Amino acid sequence: MFNIPDDLNLRIPGPTPLPAEVREALAQPMMSHRSRTFGAIHAEVAEGLREMLRTTNDVFVLTASGTGAMEAAVVNTLSPGDSVLSAAGGKFGERFRTIASAYGADIVPLDHTWGTAAAPDDIGAALDEHPDVRAVLVTHNETSTGVTNPLRDIASVVKANNTPPLLIVDAISSAGCIELEVDAWNIDVLVTGSQKGWMIPPGLAYIAFSDAAWAAHAQATMPRFYFDLTAAKKKLLANQTPWTPAVNLFYGLTAALRLMRQEGVDNIWSRHQRVADHTRQRVQEMELELFATPQYASNTVTAVQAPADLDVAELRRRLAEKHRVILSGGHGPLKGKIFRIGHLGNVSEPAIDAALAAVAEELAER
Amino acid sequence: MFNIPDDLNLRIPGPTPLPAEVREALAQPMMSHRSRTFGAIHAEVAEGLREMLRTTNDVFVLTASGTGAMEAAVVNTLSPGDSVLSAAGGKFGERFRTIASAYGADIVPLDHTWGTAAAPDDIGAALDEHPDVRAVLVTHNETSTGVTNPLRDIASVVKANNTPPLLIVDAISSAGCIELEVDAWNIDVLVTGSQKGWMIPPGLAYIAFSDAAWAAHAQATMPRFYFDLTAAKKKLLANQTPWTPAVNLFYGLTAALRLMRQEGVDNIWSRHQRVADHTRQRVQEMELELFATPQYASNTVTAVQAPADLDVAELRRRLAEKHRVILSGGHGPLKGKIFRIGHLGNVSEPAIDAALAAVAEELAER
Repeated sequence: MFNIPDDLNLRIPGPTPLPAEVREALAQPMMSHRSRTFGAIHAEVAEGLREMLRTTNDVFVLTASGTGAMEAAVVNTLSPGDSVLSAAGGKFGERFRTIASAYGADIVPLDHTWGTAAAPDDIGAALDEHPDVRAVLVTHNETSTGVTNPLRDIASVVKANNTPPLLIVDAISSAGCIELEVDAWNIDVLVTGSQKGWMIPPGLAYIAFSDAAWAAHAQATMPRFYFDLTAAKKKLLANQTPWTPAVNLFYGLTAALRLMRQEGVDNIWSRHQRVADHTRQRVQEMELELFATPQYASNTVTAVQAPADLDVAELRRRLAEKHRVILSGGHGPLKGKIFRIGHLGNVSEPAIDAALAAVAEELAER
Repeated sequence: MFNIPDDLNLRIPGPTPLPAEVREALAQPMMSHRSRTFGAIHAEVAEGLREMLRTTNDVFVLTASGTGAMEAAVVNTLSPGDSVLSAAGGKFGERFRTIASAYGADIVPLDHTWGTAAAPDDIGAALDEHPDVRAVLVTHNETSTGVTNPLRDIASVVKANNTPPLLIVDAISSAGCIELEVDAWNIDVLVTGSQKGWMIPPGLAYIAFSDAAWAAHAQATMPRFYFDLTAAKKKLLANQTPWTPAVNLFYGLTAALRLMRQEGVDNIWSRHQRVADHTRQRVQEMELELFATPQYASNTVTAVQAPADLDVAELRRRLAEKHRVILSGGHGPLKGKIFRIGHLGNVSEPAIDAALAAVAEELAER
């Protein structure tokens, strides 16, 4: 009814294209969210998410976008006045900081240049300098710059501390795509969003919550209601949610997780690595410059530097209208300076090749 | 894929059955939420919602369930320590109060017995007694008891005050079903949820926000981020949302609002009145007692008193398994004492007749 072409090449870093199985699931009839059938769906979803996130921690599915889960991560673990180390090198790192600040956290900012990665040693030094820090906010994959921060090494540094602060991670555009071990890496709170690697529409966000996070929760006084995990935990035991959940997105998530478990999380990570390598190689063959520090280039989104004489908005418009290829531009200081190609979720090489062929054609026609 | 029968008679007060047009819309391909096509969808949705709510106020679509919009209503208009009159006579009135309290409001409680309606005169007297009250929280339709509060009269009383407080209304299970005039009745903040009269799955909530609400917002210091309407307002002007919205629920909402505008809001209200009258009459013909005060019996949900010897849980189980009829039980003190029949959204008499025939059969077989 909206004339959305079935062959739309949606190459933005989320929302991502929906597999046919997911689309079919989304259109199933409505049911009661208090029924046993929904409970079975909830149980299957929670088990699948724990498998994909490599965790035995509680995993909650919130009806919200990823930003809501970022807020949930903050307000469920912290109190006003708590000292929070915030590493940021892009729009989403800054958003995490702004959320904590809005609820009264005392921010210790640690910025790195957009396009580069957070340095574990700098985080360690900042923790030494600020022993009162209660939590560290980290963005695993900074969608705005196409950088994947070295989370495993960051986690090692954070947890090497004598009185380790909580490690709270925005993995919205990495989880289910890029290597990530919640338990092995000691991540206390991890959030991710449905419209990224999870291959369903936006509207759900997932949050994994460790024992240390629960201990912090018991002391945390930031106000909360909709995102309160005490309420969620009570209902989790009955495979329900405290408030009416987005039932048909749960249908879609069930279908998507079946596909993901069939492929296997290691294979999913490998496929993202392979497609990302392919993307970066093709971009360089087109004599375009990559934006991110090569060592930390993201496997879910590639930021490409716009040639000085390129009108990025016009390129994106032509790609959409003539080729049904949708790319993203740059945020904030990067507007007009970069364009971004998403390669996460339901993606393989041919979609990238088609998108880049369209880019090449439009660049040649300037 | 979940073996949900197409003829499931989902007769709970939400989620409600999905029209075929909505189901088709929900399965459309994904798109960018920053595209012009999405902007057009957003614009059509906002216009349709304003028409259905009879308002020219800003209407925001939040990616959350109704409870999230209740929180948004509170945190966007109030400051910690503000005096708030809370009229409650059921689970959802109490929830609204709890949310305001969680964010530091100073509650003036005004309770009425479950099954009865809030009395406008009592609200007027409470406002006289507490001239410092900044806002009044009212539940238009109390889903847990099947009572519709006399909102028009309550609004008259609230707005007759010399320095009228804000009127903040939970219309989650009434808007789009029961007569409701946001502008004519001077409702400052009104919230409703997608899975009720709006005939789409849960996951979106709508909030209408008046000029007086904006004036209060400018002074309101309760912390907020995900639900902050300043951020939403900035994006509303571009027909976007600040955070990634539940795109496919917007598709569904577009389809549902086309159906609703075709029927016309007056006709929708009349149909709900007619189906509710029919339901109450049939229930009484079955020699069952209605729970709510007759004058205030809801047009979206009918609460039926369980005969003393009836096991409500067992009745509901049999209805589901043998007849594919889904009813609700009672909440809190009403558990086991009542059962509830939803008749809102995509409903007409035959679905009610089928549900009640099944109830009659099961009652006869005891």
